[in-house]
Amino acid sequence: MIQRPRGTRDFSPTQMAKRRKAELSMRDACARFGFGEVVTPTFEHSELFTLRSGQGIIDEMYVFKDKGDREMALRPEITASVIRFYVNELSTLPKPLKLYYVGNCFRYENPQSGRFREFFQLGAELIGTKSPETDAEVIALAINCIRATGLEEFVVRIGHIGILKSMVHSEIKDPKVASDVLRMIDKEDFDAMGDMFDAKALPRQLFDKITSLAEVEGEVELLNNLEQSEATDYLKEIFSVLKLYGIEDCQVDLGIVRGLDYYTGMVFEIDAPRLGAEKQILGGGSYTLSELFGGEPVFSTGFAIGIDRVLLALEAERPIELALPLDAYVIPAKDDMRKYAFGIVSRLRSQGLKADVDLMRRTMSKNLKYAAAVGSRYAVIVGKEEMAKRSVMLRDMKSGAQRVVLADEVGSEIAKSP
Amino acid sequence: MIQRPRGTRDFSPTQMAKRRKAELSMRDACARFGFGEVVTPTFEHSELFTLRSGQGIIDEMYVFKDKGDREMALRPEITASVIRFYVNELSTLPKPLKLYYVGNCFRYENPQSGRFREFFQLGAELIGTKSPETDAEVIALAINCIRATGLEEFVVRIGHIGILKSMVHSEIKDPKVASDVLRMIDKEDFDAMGDMFDAKALPRQLFDKITSLAEVEGEVELLNNLEQSEATDYLKEIFSVLKLYGIEDCQVDLGIVRGLDYYTGMVFEIDAPRLGAEKQILGGGSYTLSELFGGEPVFSTGFAIGIDRVLLALEAERPIELALPLDAYVIPAKDDMRKYAFGIVSRLRSQGLKADVDLMRRTMSKNLKYAAAVGSRYAVIVGKEEMAKRSVMLRDMKSGAQRVVLADEVGSEIAKSP
Repeated sequence: MIQRPRGTRDFSPTQMAKRRKAELSMRDACARFGFGEVVTPTFEHSELFTLRSGQGIIDEMYVFKDKGDREMALRPEITASVIRFYVNELSTLPKPLKLYYVGNCFRYENPQSGRFREFFQLGAELIGTKSPETDAEVIALAINCIRATGLEEFVVRIGHIGILKSMVHSEIKDPKVASDVLRMIDKEDFDAMGDMFDAKALPRQLFDKITSLAEVEGEVELLNNLEQSEATDYLKEIFSVLKLYGIEDCQVDLGIVRGLDYYTGMVFEIDAPRLGAEKQILGGGSYTLSELFGGEPVFSTGFAIGIDRVLLALEAERPIELALPLDAYVIPAKDDMRKYAFGIVSRLRSQGLKADVDLMRRTMSKNLKYAAAVGSRYAVIVGKEEMAKRSVMLRDMKSGAQRVVLADEVGSEIAKSP
Repeated sequence: MIQRPRGTRDFSPTQMAKRRKAELSMRDACARFGFGEVVTPTFEHSELFTLRSGQGIIDEMYVFKDKGDREMALRPEITASVIRFYVNELSTLPKPLKLYYVGNCFRYENPQSGRFREFFQLGAELIGTKSPETDAEVIALAINCIRATGLEEFVVRIGHIGILKSMVHSEIKDPKVASDVLRMIDKEDFDAMGDMFDAKALPRQLFDKITSLAEVEGEVELLNNLEQSEATDYLKEIFSVLKLYGIEDCQVDLGIVRGLDYYTGMVFEIDAPRLGAEKQILGGGSYTLSELFGGEPVFSTGFAIGIDRVLLALEAERPIELALPLDAYVIPAKDDMRKYAFGIVSRLRSQGLKADVDLMRRTMSKNLKYAAAVGSRYAVIVGKEEMAKRSVMLRDMKSGAQRVVLADEVGSEIAKSP
């Protein structure tokens, strides 16, 4: 047997029905917010991703040379491609430009629980301006996407990278040390940060100031305890716009630094606490990236949702309910009725019902078993008597109740039952 | 500027809206026929594809080594993956198993008109049996998918690979020569075939017999002129089942051989004549593949649709009509009304409408220009007077007509207008 590649997955019809249901509800939220879908290539020049994320990302990507000896990479994320597309072709469109995407991404690391080598993201980017309103709009869309899937328990944490970043960079002159410190804050590894402060003989007072800021997490009112700054005012304004959108349950979290260097202001994350250690289902913030790719500088705000984790979180709350895959399974009682049965299944399908017919020339009892096994709401049985009267026997597969219905009416009978 | 890789594409929101419309209508046809969606990995062990299609395909694939030195390939097609999935995990499910997929595929060849290095397919596989009924069912689904997109001009050609294949293999003893001849038939290159007959001193009579068979193309009644065989009876039976499905406009084409060696019986293709030389939009047939991947032999019938070509064919017939991307664009006349405007846009969205709001603090005239540029059906203008009366000015962007509407009613007003 040939196995699928390690760390990748095959999805069965039942799994896909659940995934598409969640995806469609998130797409619908994007459309309601006026975001339009874009699709970009699955692989890109690897430079696109190293420009955004640094050379280190090479080790985490699937990289290959094409026949022209150009280095390509399977995309580890889609934001860089969307901004490249914007720079190359969309920059003259009216602003703000609101784009979303759904796609597969790849990372080359050891597979572990909840982390796969091919994984799926839905993300959105608002391009063209930065203000509390645009940031709030993007956060509101993120929350609406998650809500639309039916997930009930999730926590939205909003921070501002400028507060800690500017403090760290102004107080620690060595940029390498400063960025190491920011990385430790992002990982909440304050032990390692303490060690570094000792090793570099940095003042203990600064350590305390940083940790107390990074630990500010909770109601927006916590911001009132801090020294007022442009960043704190900006954050408060975001919360007040969110309130106008009817969103009141977000938290402030000044400890969000996020791995990437390119965020400039607001950053936010959504967690599904039921997922435990790997609980983050969404990350985003405002950034500038276009000038790295040769475009005019432009402010953007965006996010990416881990679809795989959203599905895990949904299933941790309750089983995902799906409609049965078939409305009707048509069974000819004998070979003579086979042709009549094909006409009936064809009519049901043209009426928009999900219908199937015996293609294996099975016996009646085997056909009823098959109808139950594949999950059909009804069996439509065509016997000699029924055929003579241009009718069928309609059998409810759940209750077992059955009654004779005119062939002309079987479609509408099925359509009107729940 | 960083360019996208050669032979790949970026799709804009307008392009994606057209593509998703066609895709959704085809997905809907698959569901009505009782087919369930599967998704498999974007890359596979390259062996999967060479087993199916021969070593020659290596040169046409994106191949790379992973860190464990295993050779991987970006999938050139999806049938092999579906059958691998079936062999590994789905073989105990009740038969027939009806699966469909939508996904991106890759081929490494020089980009040319209508052929891209990353392209998109929708395909279906019926696994578990082979009969005129199952073959007809798959052909009927293929036709229903194409019809569902709205394409009007297309030609369905159905053949049987057994007729020519068995004749060629029984009359030409050298299997290499026989398979070269079949390839020439598939390409309709009868000049080259004549040269080969001369070079190999094969009888002219056989050449005439082959070419006249390969040229049988037209109404199903043409089969009555041929020597009766199992294959001709089988083909006629397929046409009669299709008739029960209300499908009467298919042609017989005995010249379809198709590139791949693994087809066993019925083969079929759909063309969109408006596309000229690259007119084929769908190919399929019945095959056995599972035993190549280490499974029990099982009959299957399937097809793959080239989504890119279907879109080209649709646009060649007429412009694809799309709903406007926005139902309403909310404009606060002054800064004082901004908060009120956010409440209104939020309510419209929660009513399921696609709505947006000024995020750029533009002037009224610039906002109206933006609303027209992004394609909004209505502008919802919030002035001081309107706000005082808990109402808005509703402006039809097409006619320019505007009237005052209560804020509570603006959603239902917009929803009920076409």
